Amino acid sequence: MSQDPGLASWLQLSLTPGLTSATLRKLLQQFGLPQAVLGRKRAELAAFVPAAGLAALDSEPVASAVTRALEWSAQVGHAVITLADDTYPRLLLEIADPPPLLYARGRVELLARSALAIVGSRNATQQGSANAEAFARTLSATGLTIVSGLALGIDAAAHRGGLDGPGSTIAVLGTGIDILYPQRNAGLAGEIAQRGLLVSEFPLGTAPAAHNFPRRNRLISGLARGCLVVEAAVASGSLITARAAAEQGREVFAVPGSIHSPLAKGCHALIKSGAKLVESAEDVLTELSGFRPSGYASTREPARDAAPAEGLLAHMGHDPVDVDSLCSRAGLSAEQVSSELLRLELDGRVAALPGGLYQRLEKEGRR
Amino acid sequence: MSQDPGLASWLQLSLTPGLTSATLRKLLQQFGLPQAVLGRKRAELAAFVPAAGLAALDSEPVASAVTRALEWSAQVGHAVITLADDTYPRLLLEIADPPPLLYARGRVELLARSALAIVGSRNATQQGSANAEAFARTLSATGLTIVSGLALGIDAAAHRGGLDGPGSTIAVLGTGIDILYPQRNAGLAGEIAQRGLLVSEFPLGTAPAAHNFPRRNRLISGLARGCLVVEAAVASGSLITARAAAEQGREVFAVPGSIHSPLAKGCHALIKSGAKLVESAEDVLTELSGFRPSGYASTREPARDAAPAEGLLAHMGHDPVDVDSLCSRAGLSAEQVSSELLRLELDGRVAALPGGLYQRLEKEGRR
Repeated sequence: MSQDPGLASWLQLSLTPGLTSATLRKLLQQFGLPQAVLGRKRAELAAFVPAAGLAALDSEPVASAVTRALEWSAQVGHAVITLADDTYPRLLLEIADPPPLLYARGRVELLARSALAIVGSRNATQQGSANAEAFARTLSATGLTIVSGLALGIDAAAHRGGLDGPGSTIAVLGTGIDILYPQRNAGLAGEIAQRGLLVSEFPLGTAPAAHNFPRRNRLISGLARGCLVVEAAVASGSLITARAAAEQGREVFAVPGSIHSPLAKGCHALIKSGAKLVESAEDVLTELSGFRPSGYASTREPARDAAPAEGLLAHMGHDPVDVDSLCSRAGLSAEQVSSELLRLELDGRVAALPGGLYQRLEKEGRR
Repeated sequence: MSQDPGLASWLQLSLTPGLTSATLRKLLQQFGLPQAVLGRKRAELAAFVPAAGLAALDSEPVASAVTRALEWSAQVGHAVITLADDTYPRLLLEIADPPPLLYARGRVELLARSALAIVGSRNATQQGSANAEAFARTLSATGLTIVSGLALGIDAAAHRGGLDGPGSTIAVLGTGIDILYPQRNAGLAGEIAQRGLLVSEFPLGTAPAAHNFPRRNRLISGLARGCLVVEAAVASGSLITARAAAEQGREVFAVPGSIHSPLAKGCHALIKSGAKLVESAEDVLTELSGFRPSGYASTREPARDAAPAEGLLAHMGHDPVDVDSLCSRAGLSAEQVSSELLRLELDGRVAALPGGLYQRLEKEGRR
């Protein structure tokens, strides 16, 4: 094995038990890159690393784990991406606790794309899964990469929809990247490894453990510009992802549903606390300012020009005016004018002012 | 007929064709109460009243209409309420175009109550009607009066729910108060006249006309502290009511639904533009600040105290702290601490600060 000695050092530090990623970042800040850290006397590191970590650092088990990870990363389609790499996702550098390294399998270039997280319940309804897949397919068609967690239900549907378009999909695992979980998504994981990307921050061989999934969720939101929740119960993992997204400054979107559906309650709670209600992929694109979709034809109808009301607008000029004046100007009854004014208000063409006055609102120029 | 000569004057001015309510208010401002207005020389009024209106003012048809209205108002349970009456609803005085008078049938004292408007589609789904009735029943039980428009569908369901509680219900008609429309709600209208209140601003005998209904909608919202939309298509009358409510400074509430339901689209449009998403009557009460429900037992569960996380909170003190410090303080692994911190964040008990620090948030004292 002739591999980058820098990567071996990154792996050695990150695979040492008791040496957290926060500690690792402190060491990098103090001493420079991992090779430089490891070149230091162990006594110098003792000010930063707990005793147990220090004892493990040069142990045989850590050395074996490093060798195993290097072997894994040497295989075709595999990569280990460190904080120092150009391919490390820029958006992850913004979050509170960026992982020192990511194990990746598939198309690493997807990490540089604009992405949207789509998450939701493992016990999704059929309609919920269909919604997730449809949102993902439409957004992937515009070039957005769909990020999710490879769980059953909404996650799997989102990945499937993402795979159908040029945006493709990224699955962020809560296990080691070499562990297949859940088994029922084995086929999907294989497709994602071929046409999308699997990533994990956890060491190879990390088995599924409940406490790793909330931690993983911050990467799902962290990799994306926004997070869309399709179906979620209250106090569910999807809400942890949405919370993480909000704290990371990402847009949070939620799909509403019946007030009698337990899987709509999580989405409704998000909307109540400020998430954007979305009914369509276009709603998401409207909010993701700065993202320029490729080849996306708007499905929104052009604004209707309410023909009968246009005449009234012509009589309004640009100053506030009362109903009586409009009646004489337009030759209409007060009832007709009032009714037209209400329609124009509903269209956002006129505003009602205090004192019974109305003012015409200018339409924005077409851009 | 020995009746209040003041009322006859109010009726004479308001029943004169071509004399709008805006003109009537100008006359009141200039000359005082209607009796004083009518005591003026007609030449003096000409500066305010269009020629056609002036010609009609003292005509026989207007005199007949006044007589008819006085006879109507003399019947048991009937009333004509003018802007100058103590019983005129205070909230209506706040709107842009308060009607000079209201024809009322039933319990006039309901106009002094805190009220909520509930409106929605005439073509409501069964579930939508059941929702409207349930919201109305629960809110009427707290003492809120339910205001709606006596239409089929959501309106009728809201009135039925309101009638079931002490808050009762007010129906605002888009026709003369002596005109039964729609016929299918005849039984309901009779019940409301007995145990609730029917009101209309339109002269007796006014037949249903499309342009009167948007105008009527501003009174539905104007009489209430807030407006709840249960099911509504886009560009529907319910949205006109909601828009009027927003312009009148009332709270707007909307019940969400499936993104595939045409009758949820109006509600979703409202939520996107700032209306409060509500799932329960309690959601409405939470927002209607200042209204003190009577005998209303909260259905909200007390905040769960997440037992395992409590221990971590005890180790947090009140200053920002990093994960490593918490690990040593609590004797837990970094994974355990991170996972507990995420749960505490979700509960709103701790906040994540920049630089990987966490701070405990104090719970508000129980009130």
